[in-house]
Amino acid sequence: MKKLDTRLYFITDSTMYSEDEFLRRVGAALKGGVTLVQLREKERTSREYLALAEKVHALTSAAGVPLIIDDRLDIAMAADAEGVHLGQSDLPVSAARRIWGKDKIIGATAKTVEQAKEAYSQGADYLGVGAIFPTTTKVKTILTSTDTLRDICKSVPIPVNAIGGLNSGNIDILAGIPIAGICAVSAIMKADDPCAAAEGLSAAMREKLNI
Amino acid sequence: MKKLDTRLYFITDSTMYSEDEFLRRVGAALKGGVTLVQLREKERTSREYLALAEKVHALTSAAGVPLIIDDRLDIAMAADAEGVHLGQSDLPVSAARRIWGKDKIIGATAKTVEQAKEAYSQGADYLGVGAIFPTTTKVKTILTSTDTLRDICKSVPIPVNAIGGLNSGNIDILAGIPIAGICAVSAIMKADDPCAAAEGLSAAMREKLNI
Repeated sequence: MKKLDTRLYFITDSTMYSEDEFLRRVGAALKGGVTLVQLREKERTSREYLALAEKVHALTSAAGVPLIIDDRLDIAMAADAEGVHLGQSDLPVSAARRIWGKDKIIGATAKTVEQAKEAYSQGADYLGVGAIFPTTTKVKTILTSTDTLRDICKSVPIPVNAIGGLNSGNIDILAGIPIAGICAVSAIMKADDPCAAAEGLSAAMREKLNI
Repeated sequence: MKKLDTRLYFITDSTMYSEDEFLRRVGAALKGGVTLVQLREKERTSREYLALAEKVHALTSAAGVPLIIDDRLDIAMAADAEGVHLGQSDLPVSAARRIWGKDKIIGATAKTVEQAKEAYSQGADYLGVGAIFPTTTKVKTILTSTDTLRDICKSVPIPVNAIGGLNSGNIDILAGIPIAGICAVSAIMKADDPCAAAEGLSAAMREKLNI
């Protein structure tokens, strides 16, 4: 059975850090209570991506948190990760589901109700929807309105996470929308103290979003 | 059972052409008698890579020639290609073999006897060895001497192909070395007539290399 708690979904960005510091920050985020970790690498070779995935997987496994690999199903399979996340430029969800089977976590990005329904029909386990706010990690991304986010939540029976520039100070905008959780990159990754940042985000979500 | 004839191994480079022209050239190369096709894409998104792989696979399947996907095991699996080629920066051969099983073709790049033995021990079906000559498609590549090529041929019991800047006019350098075939990129891809180029290379290999 899949363990899937998308409440506080931490997406990594290793580009600013040495490997040691990056892994230290991932470990701190896990200590701070993130419920899901996505390793997202765009610049590494396949072998480098796999090597880092194996190191992060050791951390997430020790914490009992699933590891999701961005884009690369082959890396996810080779690292024996718990899941893969597929954007609209990545493999179709249906292909990954067919190749990797029903027990693995497959997530997808959706910016519209149509994309959300399509991903769900192909077998997605959860959706990331955004960007709600502009973000420095994906500079060319298109914003998604909270109305669309709400519509997507209503259109599919799987967990929907909001993503994009979210932090403790601005998640109020999501109040009342039936999201399962939020995805955070910079708010945790770039924090002075990633553990405290994760704890703070978690507390703010309980208080402001009731999740 | 795997069909593996590496005699005239055509490696593509789509960067200079429209998709239509690229596919026309691949079709012409197949008509000219290439025995194996590798699709090598470095700049496309996963979804674009898969879409092109499916189109090329239709051509190779019609010609009865196996399609090998460079680097990306996930694309190879999603396109149901016959094989994957793994360089020293790609997934380890052992990982691909474990994931994809024994019936698929897994090739590897080797520049030294040590790399060749390692790839073979991990389950590689063939090796590409080079670059024999400087090449415009991999500008930073390190040259491999014909002595090393010969040593590699003797060190592993699988087909070894020479690669790198090879064409009808310079393959004499390989005479007497027990290679199974050659890999050609530019000599076919950039030829005025890729069909005639493949036929010419094939004839030159028979005449000069006795293969």
